[in-house]
Amino acid sequence: MDGNTKDIQTINFMRGLAIDQVNNAQIGHSGMAIAAMPAMYLLFKNHICWDTENRDWINRDRFILSAGHGSAMMYTVLFMLDYLSMDDLKQFRKLDSKTPGHPENTVTQGIDYTTGPLGQGIAMSVGAAVTETYWRANYENKKSQSPINYHTYVMCGDGDLQEGVALESIALAGTWKLDKLTLLYDSNDIQLDGKTSECTNTDIKKYFESNQWHYQLVKDSENIDEINKAIENAKRSEKPSIIEIKSIIGAGSPVENTNKAHGAILNEQADATKKHYKIKKDPFSNNEILKNDFLNFFDERNSKIINVWKETSEKLLNLFPEIMEIYIKGMFPVDRETLPKNFMEEKDDQLRNISIQVLKLFLERTRGIVVLNADLGSSTKIVGTDNPYSPTNRNSNYLKAGVREFAMTAIANGIVGTRILKAVTSSFLVFSDYTKPALRLGALSKFPVVNIFSHDSVWVGTDGPTHQPIEQFAMLRSTPNLYFLRPSNLREMIEAMAFGFFQRSKPVFIGTSRQKVKITKTPQNSVGIRGAYVIHKVSEKPQAIIISTGSEVSTAVEIAKELHKEKQWEINVVSMLCMKLFDKQIEQYKRSVITPKSIKISYEIATTFGWHKYIGSDGLAIGVDDFGGSAKEENLIKKLKLDKESVKKKIISYLEGKI
Amino acid sequence: MDGNTKDIQTINFMRGLAIDQVNNAQIGHSGMAIAAMPAMYLLFKNHICWDTENRDWINRDRFILSAGHGSAMMYTVLFMLDYLSMDDLKQFRKLDSKTPGHPENTVTQGIDYTTGPLGQGIAMSVGAAVTETYWRANYENKKSQSPINYHTYVMCGDGDLQEGVALESIALAGTWKLDKLTLLYDSNDIQLDGKTSECTNTDIKKYFESNQWHYQLVKDSENIDEINKAIENAKRSEKPSIIEIKSIIGAGSPVENTNKAHGAILNEQADATKKHYKIKKDPFSNNEILKNDFLNFFDERNSKIINVWKETSEKLLNLFPEIMEIYIKGMFPVDRETLPKNFMEEKDDQLRNISIQVLKLFLERTRGIVVLNADLGSSTKIVGTDNPYSPTNRNSNYLKAGVREFAMTAIANGIVGTRILKAVTSSFLVFSDYTKPALRLGALSKFPVVNIFSHDSVWVGTDGPTHQPIEQFAMLRSTPNLYFLRPSNLREMIEAMAFGFFQRSKPVFIGTSRQKVKITKTPQNSVGIRGAYVIHKVSEKPQAIIISTGSEVSTAVEIAKELHKEKQWEINVVSMLCMKLFDKQIEQYKRSVITPKSIKISYEIATTFGWHKYIGSDGLAIGVDDFGGSAKEENLIKKLKLDKESVKKKIISYLEGKI
Repeated sequence: MDGNTKDIQTINFMRGLAIDQVNNAQIGHSGMAIAAMPAMYLLFKNHICWDTENRDWINRDRFILSAGHGSAMMYTVLFMLDYLSMDDLKQFRKLDSKTPGHPENTVTQGIDYTTGPLGQGIAMSVGAAVTETYWRANYENKKSQSPINYHTYVMCGDGDLQEGVALESIALAGTWKLDKLTLLYDSNDIQLDGKTSECTNTDIKKYFESNQWHYQLVKDSENIDEINKAIENAKRSEKPSIIEIKSIIGAGSPVENTNKAHGAILNEQADATKKHYKIKKDPFSNNEILKNDFLNFFDERNSKIINVWKETSEKLLNLFPEIMEIYIKGMFPVDRETLPKNFMEEKDDQLRNISIQVLKLFLERTRGIVVLNADLGSSTKIVGTDNPYSPTNRNSNYLKAGVREFAMTAIANGIVGTRILKAVTSSFLVFSDYTKPALRLGALSKFPVVNIFSHDSVWVGTDGPTHQPIEQFAMLRSTPNLYFLRPSNLREMIEAMAFGFFQRSKPVFIGTSRQKVKITKTPQNSVGIRGAYVIHKVSEKPQAIIISTGSEVSTAVEIAKELHKEKQWEINVVSMLCMKLFDKQIEQYKRSVITPKSIKISYEIATTFGWHKYIGSDGLAIGVDDFGGSAKEENLIKKLKLDKESVKKKIISYLEGKI
Repeated sequence: MDGNTKDIQTINFMRGLAIDQVNNAQIGHSGMAIAAMPAMYLLFKNHICWDTENRDWINRDRFILSAGHGSAMMYTVLFMLDYLSMDDLKQFRKLDSKTPGHPENTVTQGIDYTTGPLGQGIAMSVGAAVTETYWRANYENKKSQSPINYHTYVMCGDGDLQEGVALESIALAGTWKLDKLTLLYDSNDIQLDGKTSECTNTDIKKYFESNQWHYQLVKDSENIDEINKAIENAKRSEKPSIIEIKSIIGAGSPVENTNKAHGAILNEQADATKKHYKIKKDPFSNNEILKNDFLNFFDERNSKIINVWKETSEKLLNLFPEIMEIYIKGMFPVDRETLPKNFMEEKDDQLRNISIQVLKLFLERTRGIVVLNADLGSSTKIVGTDNPYSPTNRNSNYLKAGVREFAMTAIANGIVGTRILKAVTSSFLVFSDYTKPALRLGALSKFPVVNIFSHDSVWVGTDGPTHQPIEQFAMLRSTPNLYFLRPSNLREMIEAMAFGFFQRSKPVFIGTSRQKVKITKTPQNSVGIRGAYVIHKVSEKPQAIIISTGSEVSTAVEIAKELHKEKQWEINVVSMLCMKLFDKQIEQYKRSVITPKSIKISYEIATTFGWHKYIGSDGLAIGVDDFGGSAKEENLIKKLKLDKESVKKKIISYLEGKI
């Protein structure tokens, strides 16, 4: 190592703490923590700009450990910065600790992004970097310097670069020329199951260059001077930059350079490794001098930058007040009361058309939202109001993600994770499958992304079963903290989108129809939608209720009306905008909507899976549990017996046996 | 065009039929069909080896239209080969036709793979190509030439190459040096929402070369001689080969070279396009001479090859009889009766350990299965018995996919889609999210892949919520034609895996535990598992039943026994191995298992979403509907109140109000 002795001592001290965490927990990942520690040390020592006094400083550099299994390494850095205590390190992977197995943004200060599922950290870093360019350009557009001008750093391992979401994001980062994005690649040629060469033969330099990245190689991970130079170069590059740092996994341990070092290095092996680095054998031995020197150096270096920022830049935040609104309150920067309840005539229409009209209400009022679409803007209608984002048009609220649904969603997480910008995503509902891992990570991270996906049923018609969602509603509804809403009219669409924008911790997913639907208006006197409500009320104690959603609600109302006329049956219709919201209401309200003694029918053109919670095991669930087909929509719907007449027949036949 | 006049005439004739299909349906995608028709024509005329008399010929070349929206183009080729009639073309996108909006393998002869969701066709082509190398090497290993030596061709568009699953697969194809894989890339710089350059700036040549592919450029899609030469070169290459063919989307139409040509070119525009190509205005005009000449040329060229194959190679199929077994019967090449019911002592164990023991029963008996693992073989235990597959070790039943879950699953679809090899995949259950789009496409395609994923609950413990499945069971169970099974003991594991291997049209997904579980044996007299059965029977008409799965079953049985002793309550325990299988049983059987008058409790450490179908809206669903946490498993389980004592308390408190 070319660095001075104190560098080496500090790095090894930090390695020791990482080894201790894993050994103490008797589980975890030591190999990367040992191998990549010099790069982490150097990055934080000389480059990362954080305000340790104001840890949420709005313009802090963003750092993402995409290889989340390297958590012990990250926690060690956070210990060095006093974000975590020695006791926290001892609690590594223990119940309710600040040091979970993989980094979690909702648990630990200094962790902006939850990682662990590989690849997604790289995508989120692209989102963080985009956000910076977006605000910078908005300021420049107003002839101002930007108070938002942070750098985004991301560290990854071999596995990250195998995941498709990373590859999609790398392509976008190159296309978008994200100059302030630096990827440190801990390249050790080993992964969990063996040598990386057994499953990968990619020429990394050529690969990144083909994607318009700036590539540098550091041949020896211990050479922090080289790493430092490389980071300096990366910062000067006008392209996104990757620094491939060749390291030896678990270097210095008895299992170094084998996949046995990927996981936990324990007991005697841990001792031997510590001995190799001349680290005190006692676990969690502090070295206050090294630690304080590191912290003081870090603070001194950064305080200058931060003071200048406070003097010259902080006040500029007022130019786009939405930044601080989102940042402080997590709220959407529009006064909810100023939003019109009914700003346009409510007439029969495609629900996707209604959705963009409502979204525009928001887009017109603020620069605080960007819209991402995975090459289906013409179809889903959900696009921004600006010309597409590009290296020469960065203050655009419309990001064309290409046919990259997963990266789109993960990048949206990255954007929202900066806490200074909101994001909307869009594609076909069936392709929510492609986005699922990012939807989940966003839900876990409490990132309030608003996903608006159209073509939400077999009503898609001739495109056929590959394009027709069936089970996706169940997938979305069952995901913790993800709120799936399927509005049936304008009022519900406004409620849905407002719910999405006006809270800080829940991603929402809104389904909209491609087909034109008849609209049943929400009654004027409706006290609020609360997840579900009676949209058509015949009686306080109806004989039966039909619970429906989205494009089916009006048909349900028509059937209820006809059966009232023809059979004198009293049937209420409930619009179930969002199961998860409804579940959170008080029992009394729930019983007023789903009246316990009524016969219960659910009607939704999607899987019936999950509906029996509301209709009971003997309720009638009308839906479709098999794949659809390719045909003109009316013909397909008839074949599947989901047209109005067939549904009515089913309901009559069911109720005749019950009433 | 350098081709002779008849080539041009035939291509234009075919273009006309593609235009007619879309125009007649008034929906579809004309642009690619027009642009890429010369390449399709040339490929089929000179290269594709199919036996039109025996369309399922085992050694046929595999062709995959990854850009499934180009279906009208594909159907036109199939019309030229008499696989489809003119009437079929008229039925494009109509109900129950052989010409659905996107190609479906279960509907149309000549379509081996269902496509439409972009990127996956490329992955499936990798699977088809791997299968060929696998069998070829198995034969060579026995010093025989191989009767399986087909070529795999895949055609894609710009959108395909943006999807992560394609990028993952391209990396694997290069690593695996799949010499008989040729990708034709219709490169027209336009996608649905506009210019490709708005979202992509990748240097394609450099990109593919970095992935160890052979790259060629054909600058003019009309130049079929150049395309021909390029395909010849590709066949000679020892690497997988891409031929980038620059074309003009919707060439010759009034909207050529714009994204308006991506979709349907209709009415006057269709007329104008046909006029440009001097095609008869009347829709669906046949030109029998051109068609017959094409077909005759095709048959003549191929009959020579096929005759030689019949003489020299067909008999070689006997060397690995499993090939024909799978091919003809779709069945697994092991006599089910020879499988031991209990081949090892049934003792408390991790269910993942039991799963590999059972899988080995199959692997030892045949060369007809390969195992794919996404870099978690050491953890899930599901690996092949050979050294990993590589360019120099192709007769291996173990394919290391790297951290590429989605490609792994899509490649497995590609393998199974050849109908001559079975595939098993494996990763952590939470990462089934990454595989979802391929699971769905496999289910739609009726590809019987066996997926065995471990770490199937929050019992994962310290790795934390990113690694703990919650909602995945609901996602898997609600997917049409996908059978999710969660065995609780050895007997159920054998049943589950046999179900996976001994049928031809259903993918299965088996969840296994990382943690050691106590085992409750299936009673000797159990008549068969049928999705669910009473594993612990106290009474024919119990007061209550606990329905449980997998690692929870034994705990449920213990609780039932204790409550019988302590409270004299009669509680049966049902092991719900597979909801979808159980749903298919006759009512009488179902009522004998879930006895209607019993109080019902479900107990599964996963989302409760979907359980109320079996327990009713007022049943007690014990599970976990929020994210887990990072802690030692026992501590986490206690915190979530899912440990035995807490569950027992919940059950007592619930039953005391009911019994």
